[in-house]
Amino acid sequence: MAKKRNIAVDIGNTRIKSGEFEDGQLVKVEHWDSLIQMHALKKELVERWIFCTVRGNRYEIEQVFQDSNFLYLDHKTSIPIRLDYKTPETLGMDRVAALVGAQTLFPNKNLLVIDVGTCNTYDVLSSAGVFKGGVIAPGFKMRMKSMNHYTKGLPDISHEWEEIGEEFLGKTTKECLKSGSFNAAIMEIEGFIDHFSKELHDLTILLTGGDATYFESKLKGPIFAGSNLVLRGLNRIMHFNNA
Amino acid sequence: MAKKRNIAVDIGNTRIKSGEFEDGQLVKVEHWDSLIQMHALKKELVERWIFCTVRGNRYEIEQVFQDSNFLYLDHKTSIPIRLDYKTPETLGMDRVAALVGAQTLFPNKNLLVIDVGTCNTYDVLSSAGVFKGGVIAPGFKMRMKSMNHYTKGLPDISHEWEEIGEEFLGKTTKECLKSGSFNAAIMEIEGFIDHFSKELHDLTILLTGGDATYFESKLKGPIFAGSNLVLRGLNRIMHFNNA
Repeated sequence: MAKKRNIAVDIGNTRIKSGEFEDGQLVKVEHWDSLIQMHALKKELVERWIFCTVRGNRYEIEQVFQDSNFLYLDHKTSIPIRLDYKTPETLGMDRVAALVGAQTLFPNKNLLVIDVGTCNTYDVLSSAGVFKGGVIAPGFKMRMKSMNHYTKGLPDISHEWEEIGEEFLGKTTKECLKSGSFNAAIMEIEGFIDHFSKELHDLTILLTGGDATYFESKLKGPIFAGSNLVLRGLNRIMHFNNA
Repeated sequence: MAKKRNIAVDIGNTRIKSGEFEDGQLVKVEHWDSLIQMHALKKELVERWIFCTVRGNRYEIEQVFQDSNFLYLDHKTSIPIRLDYKTPETLGMDRVAALVGAQTLFPNKNLLVIDVGTCNTYDVLSSAGVFKGGVIAPGFKMRMKSMNHYTKGLPDISHEWEEIGEEFLGKTTKECLKSGSFNAAIMEIEGFIDHFSKELHDLTILLTGGDATYFESKLKGPIFAGSNLVLRGLNRIMHFNNA
């Protein structure tokens, strides 16, 4: 009989992502449309589940996984970092999990985790393991959609942006919109990196999230690709609570 | 009998703004909810009107002002700058008017006009009077609204942002959102200024638009407050077409 695995599930704004861990190693990453489907296909294989969600669908998770051994990550869960945050009950637990994952890779370092996706988040963990706060900005595709949604006359380029020229000075409306969402997001990322690098000694920077591949080659300076930080952090939190 | 005036009208995404000119001087700026109201109150006073709109409401303007001497600014109108742009028919004529207004203030200079409002536009006019292209990015309030609209769980802070702390590292969700929309817009503006300053010799930078007051004190370096650039440019275009 195959060894049972633990599964960490990251329910984001756009997608459901699962990571299977065997002996602490991440051995498989998958994307899902529904929790019911994931449960049906994986339940025989899995020893323990851990969930974090930004959709507020705790009740749905509890219903679907009522026959399973699962941990739902919320602000009351024990975690291996300390939160210097005024409203932990509204803090996206995916951001916490990403920091825990980053700390696993770079212990005792000042860390900036940049997660680029539906929103771009910037979160700082001190070398002493304290979450110092963060930033939530629109992701670049959200910027493209919003300029269409909130104006008359500007098109939505979120489904064709890869075919549009990359010039900083656009010479068509679509080029202007691409520069103002994609290039502008690069400006913003570099601006926050510069800002926090001045405030925090010897800052280690990790880039993660569904849109990371679009930015990796564009950013200056030493930036680590933090693949699957949320899943790795969730797995560590699961062990922390079962130690 | 009082001297008749010319009125320039800038119909933006958020508001209708009029500027009255007497002997080439801007003597009054007003905001309007409707064109009919403006027409009724001003028609006796006015000699000539000029309009630019980003709402695509040409037909409405032509109906309301059919008894008046007016110029509707579109891509076929004669203008005192040259457009190096691939799709002039989709170019927002408010951006053209702002550049003409800036050129009136700083002739024969390389100019970057930053217009902050519903959207933030960045447009470059060369010292030879050629529009070299631009950038269209979401305004900071649009960023606030969009993070609520396109996610589950994030609040809309666009009506309370002035009461929220200005820290770069937010310690509440609302502070994170403010940093990621307002501070991030500052990052973006400074990023584009740095970028274009390297590309263009001795660049003169003008900041204009409905949200300019929020940014003026936050930005580094010599930046001119370009008040009413669109209205000034429209007035110049009106004279250019009646010379």
